[in-house]
Amino acid sequence: MGAERFRAAVEAGDHAGMVEQLAADVVFRTPVSFRPFEGREAVAHVLGAVLRVLSDFRYTDELVGENGRRHALVFEATVGDREVQGMDLLRLNDDGLIAEFTVMVRPLSATLALRDAMGRELGLVS
Amino acid sequence: MGAERFRAAVEAGDHAGMVEQLAADVVFRTPVSFRPFEGREAVAHVLGAVLRVLSDFRYTDELVGENGRRHALVFEATVGDREVQGMDLLRLNDDGLIAEFTVMVRPLSATLALRDAMGRELGLVS
Repeated sequence: MGAERFRAAVEAGDHAGMVEQLAADVVFRTPVSFRPFEGREAVAHVLGAVLRVLSDFRYTDELVGENGRRHALVFEATVGDREVQGMDLLRLNDDGLIAEFTVMVRPLSATLALRDAMGRELGLVS
Repeated sequence: MGAERFRAAVEAGDHAGMVEQLAADVVFRTPVSFRPFEGREAVAHVLGAVLRVLSDFRYTDELVGENGRRHALVFEATVGDREVQGMDLLRLNDDGLIAEFTVMVRPLSATLALRDAMGRELGLVS
């Protein structure tokens, strides 16, 4: 089951294990940008940066919908000195791999801190 | 069931019906501010402003967790000329009323537009 394996990989800090659960044509929507990232390679790159940017990451709740095809993993973490509350919203394909991956966070101070930290991590800003 | 009735009230634009599903001691966390709003009266005021600020509101997905106590209602809407994707994350109390209500939205452009529109609506900014 893609969502369980993905969660276990995140909790182990296992980047390769996370990427294994992504469909080749995965679409990833970040909390910050309107435009999605597409494809396993691009998303793997972003997820690597997320792992480096978020501290004290823990999943606090899990919800399921659409006959098990849709999962919401609610999390808490910190980015710098800001507390983040967020959610990974996953949709699985017929192979149980993650085909759609949408992340939302709150509050605004956390979204801004995440934008800045991710920008530095991905080399978008200095 | 509080979540179903709340969803129906939102879809009908029925503010009183939404407020009926809130526990007296409801805690409401917005996408913008760190500090929650507490109590049915305060949250009713904020939800009224949300109804006025968001256009083309529709729920697109529903997920359930914690033996039916936790619901995630995924939505799309517009605020001004910005597209918003978001989620109402609800926790019900023993009476089936909404005791915790957390809202997250994306992308950042939508969070900022929502902050500005809500600030105007609630009289926090001119």
